[in-house]
Amino acid sequence: MFTVKTPEEALDIIRDTFSPLSGEELVPLDAGCGRVLARDITAGEYVPGFDRSTVDGYAVSARDTFGCSDAIPALLSLAGEVLMGEAAENALIPASCVYVPTGGAVPEGADAVVMIEYTEDYGDGTIGILRPASPGMNMIYRGDDVYPGKRVLPAGRRLGVSDIGALAAMGITRVPVKKRPVVGIISTGDELIPIEETPAGGQIRDVNSSMLAVLCRQLGADPVCYGIIRDEPEKLTKAVENALAGCDLILISGGSSVGLKDATAGIIENHGRILFHGIAMKPGKPTILGDAGGKPIFGLPGHPVAAFFVSRLFVRAALAVLTGESCLLRTIPAYLGEALSANHGRMEVIGVHLRQEADALYADPVHTKSGLISSLAGADGYITIPRDCEGLAAGAIVEVNSFEAP
Amino acid sequence: MFTVKTPEEALDIIRDTFSPLSGEELVPLDAGCGRVLARDITAGEYVPGFDRSTVDGYAVSARDTFGCSDAIPALLSLAGEVLMGEAAENALIPASCVYVPTGGAVPEGADAVVMIEYTEDYGDGTIGILRPASPGMNMIYRGDDVYPGKRVLPAGRRLGVSDIGALAAMGITRVPVKKRPVVGIISTGDELIPIEETPAGGQIRDVNSSMLAVLCRQLGADPVCYGIIRDEPEKLTKAVENALAGCDLILISGGSSVGLKDATAGIIENHGRILFHGIAMKPGKPTILGDAGGKPIFGLPGHPVAAFFVSRLFVRAALAVLTGESCLLRTIPAYLGEALSANHGRMEVIGVHLRQEADALYADPVHTKSGLISSLAGADGYITIPRDCEGLAAGAIVEVNSFEAP
Repeated sequence: MFTVKTPEEALDIIRDTFSPLSGEELVPLDAGCGRVLARDITAGEYVPGFDRSTVDGYAVSARDTFGCSDAIPALLSLAGEVLMGEAAENALIPASCVYVPTGGAVPEGADAVVMIEYTEDYGDGTIGILRPASPGMNMIYRGDDVYPGKRVLPAGRRLGVSDIGALAAMGITRVPVKKRPVVGIISTGDELIPIEETPAGGQIRDVNSSMLAVLCRQLGADPVCYGIIRDEPEKLTKAVENALAGCDLILISGGSSVGLKDATAGIIENHGRILFHGIAMKPGKPTILGDAGGKPIFGLPGHPVAAFFVSRLFVRAALAVLTGESCLLRTIPAYLGEALSANHGRMEVIGVHLRQEADALYADPVHTKSGLISSLAGADGYITIPRDCEGLAAGAIVEVNSFEAP
Repeated sequence: MFTVKTPEEALDIIRDTFSPLSGEELVPLDAGCGRVLARDITAGEYVPGFDRSTVDGYAVSARDTFGCSDAIPALLSLAGEVLMGEAAENALIPASCVYVPTGGAVPEGADAVVMIEYTEDYGDGTIGILRPASPGMNMIYRGDDVYPGKRVLPAGRRLGVSDIGALAAMGITRVPVKKRPVVGIISTGDELIPIEETPAGGQIRDVNSSMLAVLCRQLGADPVCYGIIRDEPEKLTKAVENALAGCDLILISGGSSVGLKDATAGIIENHGRILFHGIAMKPGKPTILGDAGGKPIFGLPGHPVAAFFVSRLFVRAALAVLTGESCLLRTIPAYLGEALSANHGRMEVIGVHLRQEADALYADPVHTKSGLISSLAGADGYITIPRDCEGLAAGAIVEVNSFEAP
């Protein structure tokens, strides 16, 4: 007999049971966005690769300018100009200066750049410096940003746009990322028909195959749909065995009949062990999780709303384990748009619409009587109401898990 | 002479000047995730398409159960069973009941379902009902969720996973979405080399082409890179004219030389008008925006960190206008990890790392001396410090714009 787990216990079990997949691949930089880094990225060179000016001005030896002022300029002989994109050919000799544009190379021997606004060009090869420079002023030294061996990005990070920029700056054009987990998706139930068909009496469309496939892709996995399996345990067994052979994680949704429920549990037991059977949340209670030789097998509720929330919470966590992703759940606070009544001993997950009004963000609960489309369409995120909470007043501050972030 | 705009003024100008692109296309449902709806989606059918039970039990006429109890059950004759996925063939006759599984069709004439737990099967074709049912109990009526003509999703919404679920449930297998804007990306500067090359003295890699392309893709646009253009106004003119012919929005980054700056402004004036030249923010001040016959042309700063933040803030807003996306900027509150000193008359944008500690989220400012990689690598979002703010204390609550959400 399996006891029902709290959502926190279920997450702990997922994190404690499964391990990252071993596969990694080297992908072109632009394909790396959204992928999970397989190893630390350390710099192999100095950035910048040369001492650079941050202003348009004259590279100087700071000591040559000490004590100067508008009234008593330091007079330096102009020894040339550094062109953008070219190296500074000659070292600076004392009492001279070299013109350097913003981003240009500062010659060896110079240790500061004086902004052109604080200089005067006498036209005879002499530049007057009107303000003293301190060493390091208006320049970035070679390696100030990164130097060989510095860890720039940690393994487990899901690469974002700015990370791609940093990698490009280091000349890293291919990145080692974790293999995308392959997720097998199986829908069960005699009442299901493909979404492109029109339901006859008693039939409903197989929403879960399409929706879970899109969710998996958003979460960085590759979905494989095994179609709709009729309510016959042998067929389900065959589908699961096919999926286990080709996938890293299996989602079986539906199976509301006792036969299919037992079949799902039985198949998991035949291929491994059941980790839990039931999560104390609403919707989503009849969720099963099994471990088939290191591969998570989820038995998800058939109702698409329940399947969606369970997947956002638990399948997502399992995929993060498989890719080794270090993910934080970041929530957005909002004012609850209206009062929500108590629930009964289970954590409750409620879809919300976000609404901006003046400077405040409101989360309006999606009301529905087991509604499918009304619960899913246009929802911007969800809130959870803890098991022991007896309800929330309108205007209470709630933490919204936004659907925008994967 | 163009005056510098505040960030708010710049956003208003973008929203007031440009209009949505007219193009739309019909894409398969699974390709619709992340795209912007071109029109309202209204339901064309009833969902559910039949009266459905939400429990395993007996469909009854509620009035036949009024007044019953454990002690005095209502005795109903069992008139059959509805199978999952099949229509209820016969209407319910008074004083009878029909077994219906969860999700099964409730026969005509029945107006409630009594959970099996509150019934007793006497084995002789008679079912005892132990608790009275009220009309509508444990069932969802046809069209409770949606009905023909109900608006399910509004034009302008960026479709998410749950929206895809709702569309699948309605049998909508292709969705009308706005054309993805095509963004032309041009990098300028004699110091730039392609990222796969190793910089010689004074050279730096062209980070912006790669980074802006990935950003555009994340924002739902198709990037076209026109390469690195040397510091010659005629070459830039040619590149911009090519880009204008094939793109909906142009990004020119770099051009730190006076010649290229003037060239960018001049080209915009030749093809339209300049909307602003300078934004009061740090980094990003030397940003230009022009309107070339309805197409936004941005002159972005060459420094990748500045180009990145300006793009996140303003290019993103322009793309949302082009697709007609109704987007909210949602921020995540966090405690500032350390004090930040004042800035000077300009809004300041500062990258942050997010760090979870116990139950609190901290935003640690990315410190850098014009650092490129250190500013970009691993940043999880940014905060803005308003123009008139004189600094923030450690522990202050800041609003983080997360990079996770597009």
